Amino acid sequence: MDNLNYIFELQYAIDTFYFLICGALVWWMAAGFAMLEAGLVRSKNTTEILTKNVALFAIACTMYLICGYEFMYGGGYFLSGVTTVAGMDDAAVAAVLASSHESGFGDMGEYAGASDFFFQVVFVATSMSIVSGAVAERMKLFAFLAFAVVMTGFIYPMEGGWTWGGNSVFGLYELSFSDYAGSGIVHLAGAAAALAGVLLLGARKGKYGPNGEVRAIPGANLPLAALGTFILWMGWFGFNGGSTLKLGGIAVANEVANVFLNTNAAAAGGAIAALIVAKILFKKADLTMILNGALAGLVAITAEPADPTPLLSTLIGAAGGALVVFSIITLDKLKVDDPVGAISVHGVVGIWGIFAVLLSDPDATFMGQLVGTLTIFVWVFVTSLIVWAIIKAVMGIRVSEEEEYVGTDVTDCGLEAYPEFGASAK
Amino acid sequence: MDNLNYIFELQYAIDTFYFLICGALVWWMAAGFAMLEAGLVRSKNTTEILTKNVALFAIACTMYLICGYEFMYGGGYFLSGVTTVAGMDDAAVAAVLASSHESGFGDMGEYAGASDFFFQVVFVATSMSIVSGAVAERMKLFAFLAFAVVMTGFIYPMEGGWTWGGNSVFGLYELSFSDYAGSGIVHLAGAAAALAGVLLLGARKGKYGPNGEVRAIPGANLPLAALGTFILWMGWFGFNGGSTLKLGGIAVANEVANVFLNTNAAAAGGAIAALIVAKILFKKADLTMILNGALAGLVAITAEPADPTPLLSTLIGAAGGALVVFSIITLDKLKVDDPVGAISVHGVVGIWGIFAVLLSDPDATFMGQLVGTLTIFVWVFVTSLIVWAIIKAVMGIRVSEEEEYVGTDVTDCGLEAYPEFGASAK
Amino acid sequence: MDNLNYIFELQYAIDTFYFLICGALVWWMAAGFAMLEAGLVRSKNTTEILTKNVALFAIACTMYLICGYEFMYGGGYFLSGVTTVAGMDDAAVAAVLASSHESGFGDMGEYAGASDFFFQVVFVATSMSIVSGAVAERMKLFAFLAFAVVMTGFIYPMEGGWTWGGNSVFGLYELSFSDYAGSGIVHLAGAAAALAGVLLLGARKGKYGPNGEVRAIPGANLPLAALGTFILWMGWFGFNGGSTLKLGGIAVANEVANVFLNTNAAAAGGAIAALIVAKILFKKADLTMILNGALAGLVAITAEPADPTPLLSTLIGAAGGALVVFSIITLDKLKVDDPVGAISVHGVVGIWGIFAVLLSDPDATFMGQLVGTLTIFVWVFVTSLIVWAIIKAVMGIRVSEEEEYVGTDVTDCGLEAYPEFGASAK
Repeated sequence: MDNLNYIFELQYAIDTFYFLICGALVWWMAAGFAMLEAGLVRSKNTTEILTKNVALFAIACTMYLICGYEFMYGGGYFLSGVTTVAGMDDAAVAAVLASSHESGFGDMGEYAGASDFFFQVVFVATSMSIVSGAVAERMKLFAFLAFAVVMTGFIYPMEGGWTWGGNSVFGLYELSFSDYAGSGIVHLAGAAAALAGVLLLGARKGKYGPNGEVRAIPGANLPLAALGTFILWMGWFGFNGGSTLKLGGIAVANEVANVFLNTNAAAAGGAIAALIVAKILFKKADLTMILNGALAGLVAITAEPADPTPLLSTLIGAAGGALVVFSIITLDKLKVDDPVGAISVHGVVGIWGIFAVLLSDPDATFMGQLVGTLTIFVWVFVTSLIVWAIIKAVMGIRVSEEEEYVGTDVTDCGLEAYPEFGASAK
Repeated sequence: MDNLNYIFELQYAIDTFYFLICGALVWWMAAGFAMLEAGLVRSKNTTEILTKNVALFAIACTMYLICGYEFMYGGGYFLSGVTTVAGMDDAAVAAVLASSHESGFGDMGEYAGASDFFFQVVFVATSMSIVSGAVAERMKLFAFLAFAVVMTGFIYPMEGGWTWGGNSVFGLYELSFSDYAGSGIVHLAGAAAALAGVLLLGARKGKYGPNGEVRAIPGANLPLAALGTFILWMGWFGFNGGSTLKLGGIAVANEVANVFLNTNAAAAGGAIAALIVAKILFKKADLTMILNGALAGLVAITAEPADPTPLLSTLIGAAGGALVVFSIITLDKLKVDDPVGAISVHGVVGIWGIFAVLLSDPDATFMGQLVGTLTIFVWVFVTSLIVWAIIKAVMGIRVSEEEEYVGTDVTDCGLEAYPEFGASAK
Repeated sequence: MDNLNYIFELQYAIDTFYFLICGALVWWMAAGFAMLEAGLVRSKNTTEILTKNVALFAIACTMYLICGYEFMYGGGYFLSGVTTVAGMDDAAVAAVLASSHESGFGDMGEYAGASDFFFQVVFVATSMSIVSGAVAERMKLFAFLAFAVVMTGFIYPMEGGWTWGGNSVFGLYELSFSDYAGSGIVHLAGAAAALAGVLLLGARKGKYGPNGEVRAIPGANLPLAALGTFILWMGWFGFNGGSTLKLGGIAVANEVANVFLNTNAAAAGGAIAALIVAKILFKKADLTMILNGALAGLVAITAEPADPTPLLSTLIGAAGGALVVFSIITLDKLKVDDPVGAISVHGVVGIWGIFAVLLSDPDATFMGQLVGTLTIFVWVFVTSLIVWAIIKAVMGIRVSEEEEYVGTDVTDCGLEAYPEFGASAK
């Protein structure tokens, strides 16, 4: 072997390592969603929401392994364990090595196929995690898990395939739909599935009064909600940063560094904007709005975290943070009951993120972003509605009134989350 | 310097960085055990279990520095701070550089000696963390810490040395005992030490009724237990991934990516299997079983996370997840009181993991795995029993009945974990 | 391109990646401070301290972007988004590439400018996070946020510029003031700002009795405090490890590995020492002292984590862990009310850390360390006192007696942290 091969080996190793570390950070977002949702529901539904979060993640990993990755990217070689370079067999790798002697490979950025799977599988889990929060406190556990099977094995992989996977439909590719790390493909998709579920499910008992008044149902454990937000914010560095799909050389490294910086700036902008808007509207520094503001900033920058300046990123995030407060208020007026604000954070702000691409990416077009948004929303919303309806017909999706009153922890899981604390303590 | 030296420098830097990052992930498991155990004990013993977890980690780091690493791998140059390439002095490094010009070094994978120590020291802490959960709620704090000194300074390093350290005894090396990242060497070892302690200690007051009935003693804070499980799952990517001991070139990078993918798949399989088994047996989706199922999946794949296909990894994990439910039930029938299920997760499933190697590694033999298992278990169990017995004779290992009733938080630590919540609130 | 350029590209990518990962670990410390402080205050002030922690972080990121980085390091190109190599424009990078063909670049360690910003911005946030704990439970939310604007946009960047930034004043550079990762520049600075605030603010109602007695005000949630400490400990690997500012080749990789090992050893030493001292003084294993002991060990080693032997690192940390217990007791005797012990951990032990450099770095001088310490302390303390005083005159810094009695959660944030638990449950 000559030196060029050594360099190729090193680059391959680095790009794989980079991918795996970013994947591990995105993986960590599963814990973030679990803590955020556990903090924002009432104590009587806490064990159940934790159970949903752990189980949906396990289901997502397994379904994406069995068929999801195949639908999205083709290949499907994971059951046989042949995992070399993503999408290349050994002969192709050898050909690359041979050609690299002549043409250089600085921009090639190959990496282990298994690292690509690992990175992609935590994205589908993220999309599904968005759903659990919105339907919390009244959705049957096994109805939810049944939906998770279809969402992670089929619904998400199909639209992911039309966009990132390159299986273009509706001329999406030709329209240059641009969604760097998934404001639409991941976040809006999750929110669309959640919205379909919430519409079929109805609001929690007592959330809306007979005269249209909205009653606050405070979360039981705000430190958990804050922890969950911090975890999500941290994991987002992998979510956006890893979406370069390689680390490569100087140009890509500069891009990745920009992505880290801009992602952080947008979250900061979102938190500050939500703080200010909440203070003005409610006269209080509402922590749950600030947390959702930070998350909204992250969702908003996800469709294009590389190109904007840091200042523009801050402003894109701030717009997301302000938007999410108004969206949460509006959805409540429409009696769309979303206990954690997931539809606003990931759906409404996800759409803002897709169009914010136009502010910094000269190749993106309004029409491309519009068609992409509609494709994702319509596909996920309609298929989800059908699946939720089938599950409702077969086994029901809502717990009984008595179960909702007692709490799903005892009825579904047989375990209280905090058996010694407060009113529920024995 | 010519280019080859630059490449070697880069490879060295990358492999060291890789090792340190994996070590940091394993380090994070210390927090996972602390949260898991704090969530599964009663509130009156929470401060004390947190104290044990922080203190055992500090003791493990210090004892392994003073003598443990020396017993396990030799060298002992850490007190003098001479830390170059692991096991090589400067002259040896120079020789490597010279020879690399002729023979190539793509598979060499050298790295800083200090990074090896950092990676190894968090393994011994993991093994000791397993013990704290099993003896929770009735073991004296300083009796436990005294045991930690011996376990981390001597018992673990000795068996670690016989296997990973290459100081073969009982012909273990000749039998090709294969334990990639420590299903046996770390997890079974911790469980064996825990079992010895539990047998001498006896069950918690009230756990088993006079007529053999088993009484559930619910944990006080299930979100913490779920958080701990998420942390452990994440840390396991470093635990198994780092056990290649280098990142190297294409072949090793592919292996590492497989390890990440398979580790995640096994955990998912374990969680799903435990969910199904618990639902069938108890009619409830028992969250604590699901969490232990995920951990069992992780323990099961740890002895060989590189070779199985992803599907086989899922199944190996699922078998672990099912096994752990039955094991927990069985140990309770035998009145072996393990508040967090550590002996089942790390011991019983650890053994399953060792033998599951036979499913994918053609070089492993049943006899090798059997002798390895017996060597680890007998050595750790017997020496631990002796040490626990000595501590019991000298200072006692169990708190008084009154202290157990009041809770060890107040008696050992002088601080309640949740002074304002629930029944114990002032 | 020839091979040397490929190697340069790879090194650049690796050093950037290394910087970003270390930055993400330091970022994680924001969550650590939030959890630590949320665990150590009373439940009625928990939402508010979480709000402060999220908001201060967002403000720090934004202010450092707008002007802080400019004051500290110059450049200020972040608003325009031109982020190539730190401090170099494209022509300079091209010149480096050209010269690398002749002179070699193994020690150059260039990286993306944005990665440098990302790493630096989480340091200023760390310094500000130290303040929030000390002034907890009685400082007005918006008074605190106003101070955060000045601290992160001006006070910290100025002293950071005089030291790390190379804008020497008082002959600091000539005196070889040595502070590797910021025992003084970050931790003492945060503590000095906190002390100024606490002196103007006064103690919490009821903390000190009329006859000089000190009343314990226990924290509401010790698992959160333990979690926060674990997070901080983990993040410190990035804090100290990243302060090499590159990963480079063999020599720097060895140094980074030493830093990881020594950082961990010092924390372990600090925890053990605090456990022993607390047990002797109070007859109890006081968990909050042990946690502060671990943090004190980390602060103590931060000024020089590369040069000491692991044993010396353990001892430097242990001295910090013992010192922090006595410091906390002493400050309480002086009626300086610091709910989380931040002034002791980061200030008193920070000074110890600065002088502990003399034990292992032959180039450091007593006079240099003394002048550095005084410069940092006097600058930050005096400017902070002025800013706090202005804020006090303009809007007040202390909540009313009634607000303090009711708790700042309800009055400032309108949300209880744990609405269903314990005495405050409805």
